[in-house]
Amino acid sequence: MNEIADSIKVIAFDVFGTVVDWHGSVSREVAAMNLGVDPDQFALAWRAGYKPAMAEVMERGEWVILDELHRRILDKVLHDFALDSVAEAERQQLNLVWHRLDPWPDSVEGLARLKKKFVICSLSNGNIGLLTEMAKNAAIPWDCILSAENFNKYKPHPDTYLGVARTFAIEPAQVMLAAAHHSDLESARKCRLETAYIERPFEYGRAEPKSVAPWPANTLHATSILHLADLMGC
Amino acid sequence: MNEIADSIKVIAFDVFGTVVDWHGSVSREVAAMNLGVDPDQFALAWRAGYKPAMAEVMERGEWVILDELHRRILDKVLHDFALDSVAEAERQQLNLVWHRLDPWPDSVEGLARLKKKFVICSLSNGNIGLLTEMAKNAAIPWDCILSAENFNKYKPHPDTYLGVARTFAIEPAQVMLAAAHHSDLESARKCRLETAYIERPFEYGRAEPKSVAPWPANTLHATSILHLADLMGC
Repeated sequence: MNEIADSIKVIAFDVFGTVVDWHGSVSREVAAMNLGVDPDQFALAWRAGYKPAMAEVMERGEWVILDELHRRILDKVLHDFALDSVAEAERQQLNLVWHRLDPWPDSVEGLARLKKKFVICSLSNGNIGLLTEMAKNAAIPWDCILSAENFNKYKPHPDTYLGVARTFAIEPAQVMLAAAHHSDLESARKCRLETAYIERPFEYGRAEPKSVAPWPANTLHATSILHLADLMGC
Repeated sequence: MNEIADSIKVIAFDVFGTVVDWHGSVSREVAAMNLGVDPDQFALAWRAGYKPAMAEVMERGEWVILDELHRRILDKVLHDFALDSVAEAERQQLNLVWHRLDPWPDSVEGLARLKKKFVICSLSNGNIGLLTEMAKNAAIPWDCILSAENFNKYKPHPDTYLGVARTFAIEPAQVMLAAAHHSDLESARKCRLETAYIERPFEYGRAEPKSVAPWPANTLHATSILHLADLMGC
């Protein structure tokens, strides 16, 4: 008997850090460009611009997709790293690295197992085009790609979490958010979604493992997406 | 050399009638309910309410998803067929038949072949939840589900066709719409998309085959989605 597995219809996944390894993928591409910078620090700086950029969009109330925000941040980071000489074509190419992020080793198999029993979808601040190309590159078997772009709101706005339930005409409690970030899960919980934390200690690189301590408020705590499949009886 | 295949990045598919056999699936479920009506006529009547219902939504400017429109039409059709006695639970169940439509025999294999070379997505007036469940039931291998619901506009509004190009940050001419309806293709062409007609002579049932004569304005004319894969070099 698995009460939680019986009540859930849809598992929505955070993507950056939870399903894919943005730090490893971005720093590897930056390293390959031989820009003479620390790829690890470059990746961290780029990602550090992410939350403030989305917060600004939400404050202004005018929708801008993440590809565009990534590009604005990239231009700033290149300047901060004294790389103003990087050409437009290279910037465009590098900006699309977020479409080419590699999944964590357990992601594709874990999702394929969960897909047999549940609807699995993304719920990411990445735009639909970005998430589609990423899934195609990495063979991520989504039943459906849902994005902040569907709701013209970035997480943690409630419209995103509640939007998953509305899309499938189910109750919020029939949706589980799976994420490697307690703050995302906490926002989902306020909207009455169930929550599963996924441990990704190396999200910010192997040099600086992050805490993956459980928060008791989460419904489930999994060491990987494969472990989540175990916990959900798949 | 295949110039058209080289220029196209995304193939967007109309769904009802093009990828799935709505008439066969709906009339089979209606027949199984033993309502004492002609299942063929019932299916045709239900579908006949589709265009006027969407036109009304577009005129009023207040978004209503197709599941809800299907339900309103169903209630009217049940009344017209003197079936007011059909209970609420049965109506709810029957309304979801649109989530359970069977693909035409060539659809899944044809799409799987096209997917190797192109991004393949839906561009349907069906809502996202409907299209997701349909794809899951029928193993339709979309890279991405796009719906009128993404744009809050029903086809043939230009925002839907142009929305595909915008979603993937490409030119309209890099998108091909594949559909079994010349009117849909004509509207796409006005937005500068390329077009592929798919022959579905039995869309309205075997009793009344529809004309599948080519229109010279279409970029391609295919007898099936497998044939489209041939034409696109997949």
